[in-house]
Amino acid sequence: MGRYIALEGIEGAGKTSVQAGLRLRLEAAGREVVCVREPGGTPVGRSLRRILLDGLEPIPWAEALLFAADRAQLAAEVIRPALDRGAWVLSDRSVYSSLAYQGVGRGLGMDRIRALNELGLAGTWPDLVILLAVTPAVGLARQDMPHQMSLLPGAGSVRRPGPAREDRTDRIGSEGERFQSVVLEAFDELVRRQPERFAVIDAERPLEEVMEDVWAAVEGGS
Amino acid sequence: MGRYIALEGIEGAGKTSVQAGLRLRLEAAGREVVCVREPGGTPVGRSLRRILLDGLEPIPWAEALLFAADRAQLAAEVIRPALDRGAWVLSDRSVYSSLAYQGVGRGLGMDRIRALNELGLAGTWPDLVILLAVTPAVGLARQDMPHQMSLLPGAGSVRRPGPAREDRTDRIGSEGERFQSVVLEAFDELVRRQPERFAVIDAERPLEEVMEDVWAAVEGGS
Repeated sequence: MGRYIALEGIEGAGKTSVQAGLRLRLEAAGREVVCVREPGGTPVGRSLRRILLDGLEPIPWAEALLFAADRAQLAAEVIRPALDRGAWVLSDRSVYSSLAYQGVGRGLGMDRIRALNELGLAGTWPDLVILLAVTPAVGLARQDMPHQMSLLPGAGSVRRPGPAREDRTDRIGSEGERFQSVVLEAFDELVRRQPERFAVIDAERPLEEVMEDVWAAVEGGS
Repeated sequence: MGRYIALEGIEGAGKTSVQAGLRLRLEAAGREVVCVREPGGTPVGRSLRRILLDGLEPIPWAEALLFAADRAQLAAEVIRPALDRGAWVLSDRSVYSSLAYQGVGRGLGMDRIRALNELGLAGTWPDLVILLAVTPAVGLARQDMPHQMSLLPGAGSVRRPGPAREDRTDRIGSEGERFQSVVLEAFDELVRRQPERFAVIDAERPLEEVMEDVWAAVEGGS
């Protein structure tokens, strides 16, 4: 049985960079690694991603139901088969994003969002959640400056101009600093409820330092 | 406050023809009528309709969640505003289709599908469900023969070749006779649970006769 690790945090926390770095390190250690993201990790999900993030305006409950559908499909089609063959799954976002964004950010209620997602997930819940903590101001500033952190040896954590991320200006990510603050508080609440499930890592530091803590959390829990 | 009337039944029961006929009669009586269908009654819903019925293969729970999202959006964007201004809403399918198709046809459980839908519907539930009863053999035979029943005076219920319906060969409608039988039994169970909510009408008869019974059911309940 593999392990299911979710990378969480507000916009601009560095989830994508950490996912890439963790993949390299796990593969170097001989693991099979499957990287996924929410929403959009399956053919059904890619259609849903467009509805959720581009142009259309689903009401909050429709948004929550669509994220849950995307996630149920991803769990059945990709995550469970990967775990069953012993692979490690690294997911950019997970059900915890819905608990924070739809449950608290949209005010639908964390417990109702949890119940909704439990229906479709059939027990496929992250084993470990790495919460990359940045303040909304830092997260939003990173969003405004297209970049990618380099993972090449010797490149340090210098940020270099990179291709614009396809979701830079998505509908939910552009909700602004107040919304991101509410979501951040929701993540804190989730950590208080299940401290054993989370590793909270200060992600305002250089990427190498962040990666060292991420790696320690992953090794500590395995 | 208007009335929300759902037309239900298996594939080929004649829901679309009855919706058109009922609209004419209600408008002649001076009502504002809003006709909707599930899935696909909103811009979000039209994108979901493609995912649900064309080509992609959502797992059963994703299917149930997507129908619920479509329905929540339709209720908020179209049905509640229409009812609030006193219009009558005639819907080709409703939450009862999900109870029958996903709850029983897909084996997910009627009560769980009901709970899932209650989250997003905010109490927007049909006032009256007209269940058009045909055997699966008749329903499937009608599906196989593109047609439209004429509603013009004097044309009787003669079926004339018409444009192929866009959803004639959709993924769920093509599930076959055994699946349609299971769904039909589910509708029967729904009627037993809430007989006051349903009007069950023999829809294997000519359209004029069906329409007379539909009209009597609508007038009886108003």
